[in-house]
Amino acid sequence: MARVRFRDPAGTIRSGTWNDDGIEFGEETYDPEEVDVLSPTEPSKIVCVGLNYERHAEEEGMDIPDRPLLFLKPPNAVSGHGDTITLPEGKEDVEHEVELAVVIGEQCRNVSADDAEDVIAGYTIANDVSNRDDQHIEQNWIRGKAFDNSCPLGPVLAEDVPEHADVELRVNGEVRQSSNTEEFIFSVPEIIEEITEYMTLEEGDVIITGTPAGVDDLEDGDHVEIEIEGIGTLEHDVER
Amino acid sequence: MARVRFRDPAGTIRSGTWNDDGIEFGEETYDPEEVDVLSPTEPSKIVCVGLNYERHAEEEGMDIPDRPLLFLKPPNAVSGHGDTITLPEGKEDVEHEVELAVVIGEQCRNVSADDAEDVIAGYTIANDVSNRDDQHIEQNWIRGKAFDNSCPLGPVLAEDVPEHADVELRVNGEVRQSSNTEEFIFSVPEIIEEITEYMTLEEGDVIITGTPAGVDDLEDGDHVEIEIEGIGTLEHDVER
Repeated sequence: MARVRFRDPAGTIRSGTWNDDGIEFGEETYDPEEVDVLSPTEPSKIVCVGLNYERHAEEEGMDIPDRPLLFLKPPNAVSGHGDTITLPEGKEDVEHEVELAVVIGEQCRNVSADDAEDVIAGYTIANDVSNRDDQHIEQNWIRGKAFDNSCPLGPVLAEDVPEHADVELRVNGEVRQSSNTEEFIFSVPEIIEEITEYMTLEEGDVIITGTPAGVDDLEDGDHVEIEIEGIGTLEHDVER
Repeated sequence: MARVRFRDPAGTIRSGTWNDDGIEFGEETYDPEEVDVLSPTEPSKIVCVGLNYERHAEEEGMDIPDRPLLFLKPPNAVSGHGDTITLPEGKEDVEHEVELAVVIGEQCRNVSADDAEDVIAGYTIANDVSNRDDQHIEQNWIRGKAFDNSCPLGPVLAEDVPEHADVELRVNGEVRQSSNTEEFIFSVPEIIEEITEYMTLEEGDVIITGTPAGVDDLEDGDHVEIEIEGIGTLEHDVER
């Protein structure tokens, strides 16, 4: 089942279900076009994994890490399905990165890989928008990865995804990234064990799990569609 | 005037004033020992500046940056005055770093250095607790700097600090770090301008402004006192 957070025509924030008929809450069924779909969660932090697909590490000219490469996006990075993101001003090389996003269901710490499924609320889709101009010249990827609206999330929170899920990102209809999560170097349970060795995850926090090869520039006017098997398609627009 | 957040004997969270008589709220005056002093803010993020004092950059063997070196601590890093922090398990080299902390008073973006004073709610004290074992071997300082209780904050929110404020950190009464904010490489207004070029700061967010020379190891049983002129003294204990 897929849950969707949205603002109804009266301006109230609801958590409903999105099926073939539309978005349902109580006795109402809304046309998805007539409501504002919101990010499926408001995380206190987004913990991000870099270089989790071998061919993406190769295209970036980086070694495959021996433990998950971690970085952070703060809440100001969150954007939603149907929104228009603004690229950071004056940056030439701002790229898309499709990623499977894991949403945490309860406050947790020191979770073993064996128990990791118990703390997962569900899955959604993320675009880890990356400003390479700054990322390549800074120690910590703050200007590069933590800027406003650098993390579109959505459209829904799916309870489950296939173990090997197809992942695809299209810009203006053209396929840019196409892969499958079976290529993961570190699995979701391994990532949760590693993160929670150091920090508490809160209910609603998000882990994004790395991107496959094919990252490329976003430009003013682009329309981005990101599809992950079992979840749906996250769409957003881009402006400079 | 110095504001203090605390939990009163009935368990209610209050925002009072701390003066020579004690902590005042309404008609009550509490002995600071009989209430739980809390972090003066619950930030959505802590934006941190590295290498903002020349002699600390030297002791770390790092070049002075040509723009502020930025990194992030998430909300799980926050700890308060009078608390006991736990060092990350199995790490040998976990160090203290006294820092002046700036608390933001309103949501803001693209703030010029000239206007930066307008978005500051006040000042407090931070310890940027740093796990060097991991910091020195990772790209982004997540295991190194973003672990649970890696950012004690407090004891109060002071409306103002002297332009050149003395900064001192003592462990078990021994002075470890002693400096003055006149040594800053980047000023607070310059830092706010740089951060808000990339991201929105929210009301209650915190900026910590770098540490002077003298960083050293924390050990099980240590009692830490951090004093900044015009604010007060943040105290916390340490356990392994």
